[in-house]
Amino acid sequence: MSELCRDPITGRWNIIDTDEPTGPGGFQVEPEPLGGGTCPFCPGHEHLTPPEIYAVRPGGGPANGAGWQLRVVPNKFPALRIEGDLSRRGLGLFDLSNGVGAHEVIIESPDHRKHMADLAHEDLSRVLSGFTVRSLDLRGDRRFKYTLIFKNVGLQAGASLEHPHSQLIALPIVPKRVREELMGAGHYFDFRGRCVFCDMLHQELGDEERVIVENKRFLAFCPFVSSFPFEVWILPKAHHSDFAASSKEDLNDLARILKEVLLRVRLTLADPPYNFIIHSGPSEPREREEYHWHLEFMPRLTRVAGFEWGTGFYINPTPPELAAKALREVTISGADG
Amino acid sequence: MSELCRDPITGRWNIIDTDEPTGPGGFQVEPEPLGGGTCPFCPGHEHLTPPEIYAVRPGGGPANGAGWQLRVVPNKFPALRIEGDLSRRGLGLFDLSNGVGAHEVIIESPDHRKHMADLAHEDLSRVLSGFTVRSLDLRGDRRFKYTLIFKNVGLQAGASLEHPHSQLIALPIVPKRVREELMGAGHYFDFRGRCVFCDMLHQELGDEERVIVENKRFLAFCPFVSSFPFEVWILPKAHHSDFAASSKEDLNDLARILKEVLLRVRLTLADPPYNFIIHSGPSEPREREEYHWHLEFMPRLTRVAGFEWGTGFYINPTPPELAAKALREVTISGADG
Repeated sequence: MSELCRDPITGRWNIIDTDEPTGPGGFQVEPEPLGGGTCPFCPGHEHLTPPEIYAVRPGGGPANGAGWQLRVVPNKFPALRIEGDLSRRGLGLFDLSNGVGAHEVIIESPDHRKHMADLAHEDLSRVLSGFTVRSLDLRGDRRFKYTLIFKNVGLQAGASLEHPHSQLIALPIVPKRVREELMGAGHYFDFRGRCVFCDMLHQELGDEERVIVENKRFLAFCPFVSSFPFEVWILPKAHHSDFAASSKEDLNDLARILKEVLLRVRLTLADPPYNFIIHSGPSEPREREEYHWHLEFMPRLTRVAGFEWGTGFYINPTPPELAAKALREVTISGADG
Repeated sequence: MSELCRDPITGRWNIIDTDEPTGPGGFQVEPEPLGGGTCPFCPGHEHLTPPEIYAVRPGGGPANGAGWQLRVVPNKFPALRIEGDLSRRGLGLFDLSNGVGAHEVIIESPDHRKHMADLAHEDLSRVLSGFTVRSLDLRGDRRFKYTLIFKNVGLQAGASLEHPHSQLIALPIVPKRVREELMGAGHYFDFRGRCVFCDMLHQELGDEERVIVENKRFLAFCPFVSSFPFEVWILPKAHHSDFAASSKEDLNDLARILKEVLLRVRLTLADPPYNFIIHSGPSEPREREEYHWHLEFMPRLTRVAGFEWGTGFYINPTPPELAAKALREVTISGADG
């Protein structure tokens, strides 16, 4: 069982692994390159993952067998465990609770070599739809207050397997980073009566210089306050706080713009490691007028060091206008949107 | 000139380089190993750094010449520039100001190969004393509200030069991370009338299992809420909010315990990359009853990925009790404290 413990100073929670802890000998500064050994996510190796939670098998067939286009399985080394209750408790200064949560892996394609940018439009739509299916299902479990969907690609971005996959974590707490966003957006709404993200969308569309690409329902741009070089945000043009409530049409347009951003980044930056994170409202069946879900994409080009840890500031060597121009102007082929 | 710009949602400031920006071709995912080329910090190469701000030359001699034991120079590629004023301004949604600040490098020894852990006790005391001298001097500049002292060692920790050095940044704003700490500690003080760090010190001394080493004036321990494996905090036993006001005796004891921690970490973890950060109160000539300065040390053994960016949570695979035990039990020679 892992434990959640709360920093009494900043209120931040950490997850500490008490079950299979890693000792002094368990760290390698330069990890093994990805791709060695047997891939547990490839077809024919379904028995190497925990039993699947969800799959798309157009031709039918038994669970954990062949013929799938998309497969969702519990993470074999979960940060949090699905069983049990929170058992919140104090220990002197500190607050603790059991590390209860869900940690799932979305295997995006049976093809080991097919990166998200290479997926056909319908395949990428299926992945995004899988995100919403799992989010909505986990919402039924009242222990969970927040669902985070994210993707790590490449060693430098924290990936440990090469086969294209995303991750989903359902948490018993709305995490600090999300609370800060909700609070900041809430203050803005209280003050101005408008969604700060809607205002940002209008300012970016007007300024144009940080825009990369847009389609009917989405805008992709390098945000004015980019913490990282070539950071990209994808924002739905209509106000929605809840990613999981996206319609089929929304997900179709999101697949188009996401694929195009991934292709443009790959060509501009020589296939960099990256993370993306879907920032959505808490797990609740209501729209929030002050919050606007969006996807934040960060290629991992710089290293976070003492200054960033000490201040919470980020130093970005690339103005977003320069990044957006490069991403806008690169010639791509293969975007089918 | 770099620019400071503020995220209207979370209130976080970023520094964006508008002067010498890095474009698409300027990033290497795997940077060059350290140590190539001519070291600008080695004796005889003083002309390769900007003119020195402070130095210790026991035998005398001209500035920027030979014979120094410690040398402080402006960073050649500063994140912030010392000239000019803030010129705070708005741009639609966003807040901007000029990137005014000081960014200095403390060259810890003339010896390129002498890591901080290898410095003799008096040499390390001189480095720590240099930190306080520069902090106090920069306090004279009323534009600066906060001074951050930190050290990056190794590529994975964001270092770009091998020669042992630390960095100091004076900022026109108290950064978010520090404000959170001050606020959290302030709430605790309001509620309990005690310093949260003093309480933590007593709890850790009582529990014992997370303690690594102590001396007359300092305690080194793996904090209960460790965000990273083998994270170490060094806390002065007496309540002081301001590192720069440390006495000679304080700095002597700090040098002893810091050297011992560095040696123990090196032996336990095969000389890992690391960062340390001195967390001190804002630049002001008063003691704060709610805040307690301390040093946070983090070996860089894990990679921060989508989950951490999305939540602000950290997943730590090593319980602090296990880390402290390993660090406590490793046999060191060479600590002269």
